[in-house]
Amino acid sequence: MNSTQNNIYVTIMAGGVGSRFWPASRNARPKQFLDMLGLGKSLLRLTFERFLKVCPAEQIYVMTNQQYRAQVLEHLPELKGHQILCEPSRNNTAPCIAYAALKLKKTNPNATMIVAPSDHLITDETTFVAKIQQAAKFASEQQALVTLGIQPHQAHTGYGYIKYQAAAAAPGVHRVDAFTEKPDKATAESFLQEGNYLWNGGIFIWQAATVLEAYIQYANSIYEVLYAGWDQYNTSKEQSFINEAYPKTESISVDYAIMENADNVYTIPADFGWSDLGTWDSIYQIQEKDEAQNVVSQCNALLQDTSGCLIHADPKKMIVVKGLDDYIIVDDKDVLMIFPKAEEQSIKAITKAVKDQGKAQYL
Amino acid sequence: MNSTQNNIYVTIMAGGVGSRFWPASRNARPKQFLDMLGLGKSLLRLTFERFLKVCPAEQIYVMTNQQYRAQVLEHLPELKGHQILCEPSRNNTAPCIAYAALKLKKTNPNATMIVAPSDHLITDETTFVAKIQQAAKFASEQQALVTLGIQPHQAHTGYGYIKYQAAAAAPGVHRVDAFTEKPDKATAESFLQEGNYLWNGGIFIWQAATVLEAYIQYANSIYEVLYAGWDQYNTSKEQSFINEAYPKTESISVDYAIMENADNVYTIPADFGWSDLGTWDSIYQIQEKDEAQNVVSQCNALLQDTSGCLIHADPKKMIVVKGLDDYIIVDDKDVLMIFPKAEEQSIKAITKAVKDQGKAQYL
Repeated sequence: MNSTQNNIYVTIMAGGVGSRFWPASRNARPKQFLDMLGLGKSLLRLTFERFLKVCPAEQIYVMTNQQYRAQVLEHLPELKGHQILCEPSRNNTAPCIAYAALKLKKTNPNATMIVAPSDHLITDETTFVAKIQQAAKFASEQQALVTLGIQPHQAHTGYGYIKYQAAAAAPGVHRVDAFTEKPDKATAESFLQEGNYLWNGGIFIWQAATVLEAYIQYANSIYEVLYAGWDQYNTSKEQSFINEAYPKTESISVDYAIMENADNVYTIPADFGWSDLGTWDSIYQIQEKDEAQNVVSQCNALLQDTSGCLIHADPKKMIVVKGLDDYIIVDDKDVLMIFPKAEEQSIKAITKAVKDQGKAQYL
Repeated sequence: MNSTQNNIYVTIMAGGVGSRFWPASRNARPKQFLDMLGLGKSLLRLTFERFLKVCPAEQIYVMTNQQYRAQVLEHLPELKGHQILCEPSRNNTAPCIAYAALKLKKTNPNATMIVAPSDHLITDETTFVAKIQQAAKFASEQQALVTLGIQPHQAHTGYGYIKYQAAAAAPGVHRVDAFTEKPDKATAESFLQEGNYLWNGGIFIWQAATVLEAYIQYANSIYEVLYAGWDQYNTSKEQSFINEAYPKTESISVDYAIMENADNVYTIPADFGWSDLGTWDSIYQIQEKDEAQNVVSQCNALLQDTSGCLIHADPKKMIVVKGLDDYIIVDDKDVLMIFPKAEEQSIKAITKAVKDQGKAQYL
């Protein structure tokens, strides 16, 4: 392992609630802890194992909400307690990343951080690892804030876009011009035509020291609140400091707080079989289908006159369906949902309706 | 209790497998043990409680298959062991009733038997009990074989029909001319027009001695096999005799073996809110519906753009459905079935397909 690798730390963001995947995901057991693809491993576990190719387990940290701490340890028994950073409140990504950066900088002043979501799919791990290493090298050499940019293959309106400069700053590395949040369809199409746009997959690479400089400049209130605990980080007093201070930080994403403001932001365009697994349809799209275009995830199924359905249930469950086309069928313990695939965007509204019925125990 | 009542014994037939209600009914837990109507009681329990208005619990017997003995006791803890008659093989109703008649005649030479299915619905119990008592009186006074005839209200092709003589043999009692098994639609319609036809609900009333005389005359081979154990009935040797002898009896229904041949057969036309609960649709028809004509049995449901569905699931389950019309949705532990209501006759074929897939554990 060379010296760059020795300084690489991964911080996996695993605090999300994944309400779009209800009833498979629940408040008490969100998407990152689920085996959404029927591979026998949770998405968090897959993410962790992917990063073992980047750095040793003891340099992988997980940022999550306190309520999920035990589940993280269950899925990643390799972790020591201090590798799990617990947010006492949900304040979006900027405070969370600042906390991790401070802790890592104290651990290793030369630490290079990889920030990555816990619940995405990456199929080409070789390319992914190579791009991460390239980014880490560039970030540490140039004191740059680097984001991997996903080569877009459709005018998706559900992602943020990164606009980059055509001229490379280094081989394969481009300066970022702008970030655009979820565009409308016409705008997304123009982005694809222009060609110098990438999807923002939420994968960031930078030295802890570099990003903390950016916080001081662009999000100083967050920095000040969390820097106050410098002496407590990596001591037994860290959690009680965080419990007290963290809820006072501004709730804002790192994209808004830092990336859209900083001028040392670079991207590495990449194509490594990425999906954010953000919707049931994205799960449907990437999975193997039977001759009638049904995806049957894990469970036993007997389907007649049924096509285009996504069926997600316990491996021990037998699902018998006759005469359904293009439905999502999710059976998960105490909830069964049968929903037209075309209307999956209203699943969130359903969870609200369940809550309004006074049945929050199902959420 | 008058002397006629003292001689009344009820024999509830509870050996069926109910495969039309898979996956709610299973080989190991057939329909009679299920709370098909969401009333908090199994159909067997409802039948037993109905007959407590006819005779005391100690005069109620249950005929079932050996594999269901424990379940019968679980649902009817009032019963003593000797009140559960266990068939070692499924030989249809004629041998089963002959066995019960022999045992009861030995118990009480003046025994009047009521034979009744365990899994039907009767909503007007007052009329039912009155008709049973009337039938018991007539049967014991006239040495008659009496069947209650259900007043038909549609040209149903799934039932047997009883043709009776217009002139009454006694007030409300008519001699039976003929039995017709499930007719075709045109025949069933002509029966309804003629007016002197009733549905055969499988409820028989006769003295044990009277029906045994009929066995001697019309089904003597069954009688001989089972009469050989006369000395063993009501002793510790009864079950071992039955285990040995019973499988040798002819497998035939009491309708074919006795009722269609005997000349002392009478019927009492009656109307007491009867349903054989023979199909999911019959369950659907009798249950309370929401404004969109959905029947939600027991479970929690959140239905959108959904009508005419029958939803049957565990009381603790939450069922969310969008955009389905006229489906049967049955969720029962390890099986979920989503099936068009109009095609429910093919559910039996589905269970065969499940078996052919080598997944008999789900049946």
